Amino acid sequence: MPAPRELDRLRVVLVSTRNPLNIGAAARAMSNFGCIHLRVVNPYEPAFREARSAVGGAAVLASTEEFSTVAEAVADCTLVVGTTAVRHRDLQHTLRRLEPGARLIRKRLASSHVALLFGSEKTGLSNEDLSHCHWLLNIPTSKQNISMNLGQAVAVCLYELIRDPKSARQSEKLKPASAAELERITELLLDVLRSSGYIDLRRVADVDERIRRLVRRASLPARDTDLWLGMLRQILWKVSSGKHSTD
Amino acid sequence: MPAPRELDRLRVVLVSTRNPLNIGAAARAMSNFGCIHLRVVNPYEPAFREARSAVGGAAVLASTEEFSTVAEAVADCTLVVGTTAVRHRDLQHTLRRLEPGARLIRKRLASSHVALLFGSEKTGLSNEDLSHCHWLLNIPTSKQNISMNLGQAVAVCLYELIRDPKSARQSEKLKPASAAELERITELLLDVLRSSGYIDLRRVADVDERIRRLVRRASLPARDTDLWLGMLRQILWKVSSGKHSTD
Repeated sequence: MPAPRELDRLRVVLVSTRNPLNIGAAARAMSNFGCIHLRVVNPYEPAFREARSAVGGAAVLASTEEFSTVAEAVADCTLVVGTTAVRHRDLQHTLRRLEPGARLIRKRLASSHVALLFGSEKTGLSNEDLSHCHWLLNIPTSKQNISMNLGQAVAVCLYELIRDPKSARQSEKLKPASAAELERITELLLDVLRSSGYIDLRRVADVDERIRRLVRRASLPARDTDLWLGMLRQILWKVSSGKHSTD
Repeated sequence: MPAPRELDRLRVVLVSTRNPLNIGAAARAMSNFGCIHLRVVNPYEPAFREARSAVGGAAVLASTEEFSTVAEAVADCTLVVGTTAVRHRDLQHTLRRLEPGARLIRKRLASSHVALLFGSEKTGLSNEDLSHCHWLLNIPTSKQNISMNLGQAVAVCLYELIRDPKSARQSEKLKPASAAELERITELLLDVLRSSGYIDLRRVADVDERIRRLVRRASLPARDTDLWLGMLRQILWKVSSGKHSTD
């Protein structure tokens, strides 16, 4: 994630939002992604009052600022970006897909405030709203349904902003078993296979090597070594004692 | 976006979901990102019935399959991934951030079905649910609020799956004005500045070059050339006629 200071410079601006659940959902997504500055322009008043009681984004809602015009809501920002679902309207603005758009927003956030505008549920941003924008941002949705829920659109945009391209190969993997642990499992498994008659039935010269490779391909985590060894010991005891009893 | 065939192999599995709005929201996000196979396991029945009337994801909801166990819901999948908000629980599974996790899911979708599990709103996936998973996926949220709304979590995961890393530098930019258009604007602007007395007041040897660079730095789109020229012509007429009238 970028430093908190960077997302601290983002202003999410909801213009003429109607549904209180959507204002609450936007606030919750902001809280999830560490973004606290919500601004509402000309909200449907009952919606705004109701949203203030929504769970999950309480801190964001408590500090939300209300404006009557877009111009006032974006006055302190050096970059104003409008979101739109429409891809092929007569272009009055440069239209960027979310991925490259977010890169530019992140860059600008390093030094100044950026406003990200979301329009009303029914009509989106008006032409007047759009005239305040430097360029437009489009989430790459399916052509069959381009209209996203407002709260989900906010969540996806903020996710792309905090997403770390460099983390694309990082994972918090389970510590794998060591070669020594794998070899103990292999030896015990071979004992079981010998005791059970499996190896006698399938006479292959390099059976040990085959089993050793089989165990390595399973890529066992270190934490499971004792469990596997315990199970194999029990099985070995059973097949050995079983053999004795029928001898 | 990946080919539709690939997302066609993804199964979104909602386990023990309580809130009908969340089932509807998940379906809508799926529709937005071109994913149609929704499965519900043991949903709160009134919630499921109510969700079927939700807007925006009607096609997805109409074909939703209902199961009574996770095992049945994921039976045809070769990879089962659970989502979790918890980052530091005693790791029983490999835990992957969304970005690297989505890469692995995309790879597997190229050849077989993958199940992506989301737990109930209150408790997430149970240990029994998790025991069906090959590994876990975590959305990189702020530590202050790791609990995402279900519909928003689905939207963010699906967005990451359809996101095109190669598009990070693509944009649909406005066609910039040609050098000839910029030069016409520059010439007219210089006329205006001469007529208005601006250039006489600030005697600088290389004023033409300065103004030419100024116009280039504005990076005007081609579509605005005529507008600028029209404005400048009008201004030139006004400042010239004004000068004449006071002569």
